[in-house]
Amino acid sequence: MHDQALSSSRRMNRPARGEARARLIEVARGMVRHKGFAATSVDDLCAAAGVTKGAFFHHFASKEALGVALIDDWTEMTSGMFAAHSYNLRPDPLDRVFGYLDLRRELLGQPIPEFSCVAGTTVQEAYETSPAMRDAAARSVSSGFQHVLPHLAAALNAHPVPGVTAEGLAQQFQVAVQGGIILAKALNDPGPAREAFDHLERYLRLLFGRPAAQ
Amino acid sequence: MHDQALSSSRRMNRPARGEARARLIEVARGMVRHKGFAATSVDDLCAAAGVTKGAFFHHFASKEALGVALIDDWTEMTSGMFAAHSYNLRPDPLDRVFGYLDLRRELLGQPIPEFSCVAGTTVQEAYETSPAMRDAAARSVSSGFQHVLPHLAAALNAHPVPGVTAEGLAQQFQVAVQGGIILAKALNDPGPAREAFDHLERYLRLLFGRPAAQ
Repeated sequence: MHDQALSSSRRMNRPARGEARARLIEVARGMVRHKGFAATSVDDLCAAAGVTKGAFFHHFASKEALGVALIDDWTEMTSGMFAAHSYNLRPDPLDRVFGYLDLRRELLGQPIPEFSCVAGTTVQEAYETSPAMRDAAARSVSSGFQHVLPHLAAALNAHPVPGVTAEGLAQQFQVAVQGGIILAKALNDPGPAREAFDHLERYLRLLFGRPAAQ
Repeated sequence: MHDQALSSSRRMNRPARGEARARLIEVARGMVRHKGFAATSVDDLCAAAGVTKGAFFHHFASKEALGVALIDDWTEMTSGMFAAHSYNLRPDPLDRVFGYLDLRRELLGQPIPEFSCVAGTTVQEAYETSPAMRDAAARSVSSGFQHVLPHLAAALNAHPVPGVTAEGLAQQFQVAVQGGIILAKALNDPGPAREAFDHLERYLRLLFGRPAAQ
């Protein structure tokens, strides 16, 4: 009854023009995190967003165009969230990196769909069939590197490690994020995703000769 | 012309009963690695395998049942391949683990669809909508742990590392495999997937005090 009431109030209050686009991206984000991109139909998106199919194709030339906009919106949203976090204010660069890992572990306290990655899920399916979505996922993953890259560069500048670059090390954070999500989904347990960050932290402490406080 | 000839010879030589099932799994494996599970339709599978829809539903009660069989077949096939590899014969347990990493890096020499993981791709989409496929992916990921678990247990037995278990360490190999595949797909480059194994090897060498030969 409550859902029906919500749904009819939505039909009565058609979203304003700009709002329809934002609402379609928002419902797409939820659906893609729950069941993937291919399983999310334009009809389902329109019904959930309370917009007509005409409105959908006014804002997006195709489902693929929605996919690109969804991933780019995701990149902007997550970059903003990480950039605004207090770990960036710690004086020591390696402490900033450890603060990022603490935040990542904290995010795993939510239900799995809430920490599932829109870019990682979508590129898994669309990397070959949609170069435009793959490029959007590349922008997203590369933006993820930036959450830690300047801190790692500063840490390596103060304490060089032979054979290790800040770029290569920054990629390992996305490996842990994306690989951890797949293990969490398969095993239906966020524990292995958390443990991926624990091992990455242990690796960094060994590389930089910074043992954990007892 | 060549494809058409192939296709009509297929229509003329209908596969035998047991063969149809195996052929459906084989074409599903290719399609899922190229474009994901949801984007792969039963019609496409039947056309590519040269079997009727009736034959499909004779062998599989549903598309989901094919998905479970596909993942279980994948688990069996990959387990067999890794178990038969010569790295398992090296006398030192850590050398066996490094041999496994060498093999993993070698596999990345193929085109991306050929090293894409059927279980990792499928569970990304189906973890919530299909508990049966999620369970099959859990069996697959857990079987992946077994490629290195006994060797890691033996290495830790000879050289214990405080706070590190063989189970937790074995999971990091699947984190590197699955996370590396997503980076390779997004960046359209196997380099980052290879580098994930390089960092994992460096981590193991630090944990076990076994520097690389110069």
